[in-house]
Amino acid sequence: MDRNIYLSKITLKEAKQKIEEAILEKKIIFKQESELIPVKEALDRITAEPAYARRSSLHYAAVAMDGIAVRSQDTSNATESSPVVLTHQKDFQYVNTGNPLPDGFDAVIKIEEVAPLEEGGKEQEQLQIYKSVFPGLNVRQVGEDIITSQLILSTNHKIRPMDIGALLAAGITEIVVRKKPRVAIIPTGEELRDPTEEELKPGEIVDFNSQMISNYIKQWGGQPVVYGVVRDLEEELKGTVISAVGKEDIILIIAGTSAGSKDFTARALRESGEVLFHGITIMPGKPTIAGVVYNTPVIGLPGYPVSFLIAAWEFVLPLLLRFLEIPLPLNKQADALISRTIVSKVENEEFLRVKLAKMEEQLLAYPLSRGAGVISSLVEADGIVRIPAFSEGLTFKEEVTVDLLDDNIDYGNTIINIGSHDLLLDVLRNELQTAHPELRFASFHTGSMGGLMALKQGIAHMATSHLFDVESGEYNFPYIRRILDGYDLLVINMVYRQQGLIVAKGNPKNIKGIGDLLRGDIVYINRQKGSGTRVLLDYLLTEHKIDTEHIRGYQQEEFSHLMVASAVANQRADLGLGIYSAAEAFKLDFIPIIKERYDAIIPQRYYSSDRMQKLLAIIKTEHFKEQVAQLGGYDLNHCGKILIDGKTN
Amino acid sequence: MDRNIYLSKITLKEAKQKIEEAILEKKIIFKQESELIPVKEALDRITAEPAYARRSSLHYAAVAMDGIAVRSQDTSNATESSPVVLTHQKDFQYVNTGNPLPDGFDAVIKIEEVAPLEEGGKEQEQLQIYKSVFPGLNVRQVGEDIITSQLILSTNHKIRPMDIGALLAAGITEIVVRKKPRVAIIPTGEELRDPTEEELKPGEIVDFNSQMISNYIKQWGGQPVVYGVVRDLEEELKGTVISAVGKEDIILIIAGTSAGSKDFTARALRESGEVLFHGITIMPGKPTIAGVVYNTPVIGLPGYPVSFLIAAWEFVLPLLLRFLEIPLPLNKQADALISRTIVSKVENEEFLRVKLAKMEEQLLAYPLSRGAGVISSLVEADGIVRIPAFSEGLTFKEEVTVDLLDDNIDYGNTIINIGSHDLLLDVLRNELQTAHPELRFASFHTGSMGGLMALKQGIAHMATSHLFDVESGEYNFPYIRRILDGYDLLVINMVYRQQGLIVAKGNPKNIKGIGDLLRGDIVYINRQKGSGTRVLLDYLLTEHKIDTEHIRGYQQEEFSHLMVASAVANQRADLGLGIYSAAEAFKLDFIPIIKERYDAIIPQRYYSSDRMQKLLAIIKTEHFKEQVAQLGGYDLNHCGKILIDGKTN
Repeated sequence: MDRNIYLSKITLKEAKQKIEEAILEKKIIFKQESELIPVKEALDRITAEPAYARRSSLHYAAVAMDGIAVRSQDTSNATESSPVVLTHQKDFQYVNTGNPLPDGFDAVIKIEEVAPLEEGGKEQEQLQIYKSVFPGLNVRQVGEDIITSQLILSTNHKIRPMDIGALLAAGITEIVVRKKPRVAIIPTGEELRDPTEEELKPGEIVDFNSQMISNYIKQWGGQPVVYGVVRDLEEELKGTVISAVGKEDIILIIAGTSAGSKDFTARALRESGEVLFHGITIMPGKPTIAGVVYNTPVIGLPGYPVSFLIAAWEFVLPLLLRFLEIPLPLNKQADALISRTIVSKVENEEFLRVKLAKMEEQLLAYPLSRGAGVISSLVEADGIVRIPAFSEGLTFKEEVTVDLLDDNIDYGNTIINIGSHDLLLDVLRNELQTAHPELRFASFHTGSMGGLMALKQGIAHMATSHLFDVESGEYNFPYIRRILDGYDLLVINMVYRQQGLIVAKGNPKNIKGIGDLLRGDIVYINRQKGSGTRVLLDYLLTEHKIDTEHIRGYQQEEFSHLMVASAVANQRADLGLGIYSAAEAFKLDFIPIIKERYDAIIPQRYYSSDRMQKLLAIIKTEHFKEQVAQLGGYDLNHCGKILIDGKTN
Repeated sequence: MDRNIYLSKITLKEAKQKIEEAILEKKIIFKQESELIPVKEALDRITAEPAYARRSSLHYAAVAMDGIAVRSQDTSNATESSPVVLTHQKDFQYVNTGNPLPDGFDAVIKIEEVAPLEEGGKEQEQLQIYKSVFPGLNVRQVGEDIITSQLILSTNHKIRPMDIGALLAAGITEIVVRKKPRVAIIPTGEELRDPTEEELKPGEIVDFNSQMISNYIKQWGGQPVVYGVVRDLEEELKGTVISAVGKEDIILIIAGTSAGSKDFTARALRESGEVLFHGITIMPGKPTIAGVVYNTPVIGLPGYPVSFLIAAWEFVLPLLLRFLEIPLPLNKQADALISRTIVSKVENEEFLRVKLAKMEEQLLAYPLSRGAGVISSLVEADGIVRIPAFSEGLTFKEEVTVDLLDDNIDYGNTIINIGSHDLLLDVLRNELQTAHPELRFASFHTGSMGGLMALKQGIAHMATSHLFDVESGEYNFPYIRRILDGYDLLVINMVYRQQGLIVAKGNPKNIKGIGDLLRGDIVYINRQKGSGTRVLLDYLLTEHKIDTEHIRGYQQEEFSHLMVASAVANQRADLGLGIYSAAEAFKLDFIPIIKERYDAIIPQRYYSSDRMQKLLAIIKTEHFKEQVAQLGGYDLNHCGKILIDGKTN
C-alpha cells in the first residue's frame, strides 16, 4: 500500500494563515463580479457600490396636523387678549395631515387651537388665532427622512428589509450587488449513493454531505453547484477540478482527503495546482486539505460528516464571506461546567460537541458522541467546546467556554434526563415539544445506576431507572436509599414493561430461555455495567448458576435496547436481554422473562418547576399513553403515579 | 369632521394580552395545514410531525482501520512471546477503512500491528499477531450514528442543514412540514404610488411599507401576498378584507389606522368583525389596531414607516411564529450609557432608536431621529431603548438597556464622529466600509461647537469643526484651547472648502452678497446655533452691521448644508449660507464668500487605535481625494496634515 503521502499536520491557526498568505500573495484571486438587480429582490444581498439618495423623502412639504395652513408673518401680533382674525382662502386654508402644504403658506395651526368667529358649520370663513407661530410649525419639511444625495447604504452592506424601505423611499429601485459566489461541490467515492435510493448494499453510503453543504452555502450567501459523484479515480478528479476552474469561484472536494490508498485528493491537487496544507491537528476534521488551482481556492473536506462540517465552518464560511467582503459573524459563547470528565488526545485540538442545560442557575455542558461519523451528535449539539492541543482533557465540573451553534435557545427551558433507556423517552420528547415548542427534553442513556449517580452529582433534572434488588425483590427504592440517602425526591412510575430475550425472527436457533446462553453455537450481546438490564441479567445468571466466562459474547456491550436488537437483527449476536418494544421495532422474536417497573426519579427542587410540571402533565395524557402502548410490551396502568414523595431516609 | 372614533389606548402589554385571549377563546383560529416535501428542500421549514429513522446509519458493520479482519476467538491465546499465526482467507482477510466487515469476522487488527511470517510482498499468506483482541475492535457497528426507529426530529423543529444530513442518513427523503402561513398585505391610501414611478407629485408617497413587510414575512417563514392598493373608501376596504378571509391566514392592513376623517380601518373592521383594540400607548406605533374577522386575525398597522415596523415586530412576528408553533427569538440586549438627555412624553412608552459604539470599554447609546416617519433612523439603528410610560425621559449618561436589532456587530469597531456636517463624511464612511467591511463610521451633525463639547464629554472619537475666531483670525485652535484646555489631542486638516450663499438656479432674485439679507423680498434659511456656519454668518452680519431682527427667516434653522440647499431648491427660502458642494448637489447657484479650514480633532487616546489609523489612512488615499474633489469646492492640498499634535495648553 502506498502510505507515503502522509498528512503534513499543522494547527488550525497555521492552516488559516496559509490561506491568508495565499490571498495576500495573490495566489488566490477573488474574481468579484456585480450585477444590477431590483431593490425589491435585494434582501440579504451585499452592496457592491454605495447607494446615494436620488430624491428626498418627504419630497414635498407636508402638513403634520389636521388644521389650517397660515403665513407665519400674519400671526406675529396674535395674543390671548388680542387675537388675529384670518379669512379663508386669503389668509388660511383648511388642511389635513399628509396634505402638501399649500403654496405661499409656511406653518400649520392645529384645528383645536383656532376658534370660529361665529357658531356654525365645520369650515368657517373667518377664524381667530391667539398666538403667533414660527415658520415650519406642524410642517414636515422636504428631506425630513432622507435628503437627495445622502448616502443610504455603503458598499459591503448586507441588505435588510428596512434598507429596502429606505432605498425605495430615496427613489432607488435598482441596486448594484455582488454576484453570489459559485461554489462547486464535488463529491468523491464510488461507494456514494443518492439519498433517494431505497435499498443500500453493505459498503454503500448515502451522499448527504453534498446536501448539507449546499444548504449552508445558500444560507451564507453563495450559490451551490453540485457536481456528479467522482469515483475513486485520480484522473477523473483532476479533470473535474480543471473543468470547474474558471466557471466556479470556490471548489470543494468531499472526501478522499486523508492518506489511504484511495485518498487521492491531495495528489490530484498537487498535480493540477498547489497544496497549501494537508492535514490539521484538529479532531474531528484532521484530513482537511487546501490548495489553489489557477488562482481558484480548492478545499478538500473530509468525508466523515462531523469532520466535514467542522472543516466547512472553519474554512469554507470564512472564504465565502471574504469573497462577499462581509465580516464573519461574531462567535457567540457561553461559560458552562462540563458534566463529566473527558480524556482528550494531547496531539489534537478537539471539537467536543455538547448539549447545554441549566441546573438551577448553573449552565452545564453535556458531552455528546465524539465520533467523526456521528452526524446526530451535531443535530443534538448546542455548541462546541474546544479542547486545546497539549491538554489531556477536562475534569468533572471544570469550567469551559462553549462556542454556541445557535444563540436563540433558552437553556433554562431544557430538561435533562439521565438513566435507563426506553423507547418511550423519544415519544415523551416529541410530545413535549409539540405541546410546548419552547421546551426541550434531552435524554442520556448511561443506565439506571448512572441516572442515580447523575442526580447525586447534580447534573440531571430526572433519572429513569429499573434497578431490581435481589434481597428485597423491590425495584429502585433500595438503590435510591443507598445512593441518594437523605434526598428530597419523588419516584413516579412511568410504565411496567416486558423484559425478555430478543432473538432472530422465527427463532431459528430455537432458544428457550437463559439456559441457552451456555450453548456453544450461540453468541450473546450484553448491556453495559450499571444498566438495569445488566443487573437483571446478572441476577438471572446467578439464579441459573451460569458462569459468565462460559457465555460467548458476554464482553460485547451495547448502551441501549435498540442497539441490542440491532445486533441481533444484523446477526452480530443470536440473542440479547431487552424490552419487547425494541424487539418489535426490529420485527424480531421475543421470549418474555419478567415484567419490570420503570420509574422516573425527580428531586423535589426540580419537580415543582414549570417545565417539569408540563412534562409530567404530558405523561398523564391519553395521547401519550396510546403512543407508548403502540410500541408494545407496556402496562401503563400506573403511569404518572407517585410512588415516593419526600425524603428518602 | 367625524372625530368620535377615538383611539382606545391601552398599553403594549395589555394589547398583547387581548390577542392572547382571542386565541384562547378561539376567536382567532389558526387553520394549520401541513405538506409533504423533499428533505433536500426543507431548509428553514418547521416539522409538523416527528421524523423517526427508517434505517440505521451505518446500515452495515464497517471496517474502521486499514488492516485485517479476524475472528476474535482465534486470537484469545496470542501474546508477545507466543504469537498466533493466521492464514489468509481461512483466518483473516485484508480490509480497508470503510469496507463492510466480511461475514464471519468480528474484529479488525490494524495493519501496523501484524507481522508477516516471511519477508515479501504487500499481501502475505500468513501473518503473526501478538495480542488477543475483543469482538468489535476497530469495527463501526450498525447504528453507530443513527438507529432504526430512533427519533431524528420532533414536531415544531426548524430544519437546519445538519438536520437535512441526519434525515437523509436515516433514510428519510420526504418530510411533513407546516405550510407557510399566507399573510395578506393590504396597503391603503389614494396617495400611494408604486416605488418604480419616476415622478411623484406633492402629496403622493411611495408605498415601500408593503415591500418591507413582505421581506420580513419571508424571513420569518411566512408567505406574503401583496394586495393592490385600496383607496380611501371604507366599502372597498371591507370588501377586500372579506375576500381575503378564508384564503389568507393573517391579514395586515397598512395605514388608515388612526382616528382622522380618512382613517376608516377601525370602522371597516368593526363592521365586518370585531376590534380587539384600537390604539396603544407606544410611540411610534400608537395607532395600531387588532381585530378578528371570521376567526382570522387582522392587524391594522400605522402608515408611518417606523410606527409600521415597530407594530409589525410587536404583533405580526409573534402571531406568525405562534401560527408556525416555534418560540420567539430571544431578546438580545446590551447595557449602555445614553449619550444625551432625552425628554419623553409620560403618557407613552417610547421606542428610542439608538446607534451603539464603544468609547474605550464603555458602550454608549446615541439617540437617532425620533420621528415616526424617519425610516433612515432604523437603517442607522443598532437597537431600541424602551423608555417606559410615566418616565419623563433619560438623563445624560444614564444607564439604559438596549434591545439589539442585530447581535452580530462588534461595537468596538465603530468610530463616532460628532460635529460639523460635510458631504465628504459620507464619502469617508463608504470608503472605510469598502476597505474594511468590519469597521463602521457614524457621524452626528450637531455643529462644530457640539463636536468640541462631545469630545469634552467623552462621547465622540473625533470631532469635525470649522470655527472661525474673529479676534485671532484663526480656525478652531482658539476654541479648542478654550473648550478642551489641557487635552492631549491632534488637529488634522481634512479640507479647505468654499463657503458662500446658496441661491436658486439662475439667481432669479439677483442676490449679490450678505447685504441682500436686508431686502424685504428675500427669505433666509439659517443654520442652528453652535454650527461653524452660524458663527461665520453672525461674524459676517456684524461686519456688515446687519441687525438679525431685520432678516426674514433668520429663525428658520436647519442642521446641515444639504437641508439648507434643499430649502432653497424647494423655494422655502431664497438663500442660505453653506458650502459649494451642497449647492452643487442640488444644482443651485452659489456666490462664494470665504475659503475656510475644516479639521478633524482627535484625542490622542483614540488616535492611536487600529480603527482610527485605518480611517486616517483612507483620507490620504488618492481615491478618497478624487471623490471629494468631484463634489466641488474643495481644496485637498493639506488633507491629512497634522496641524497640532500634543497638549493644548
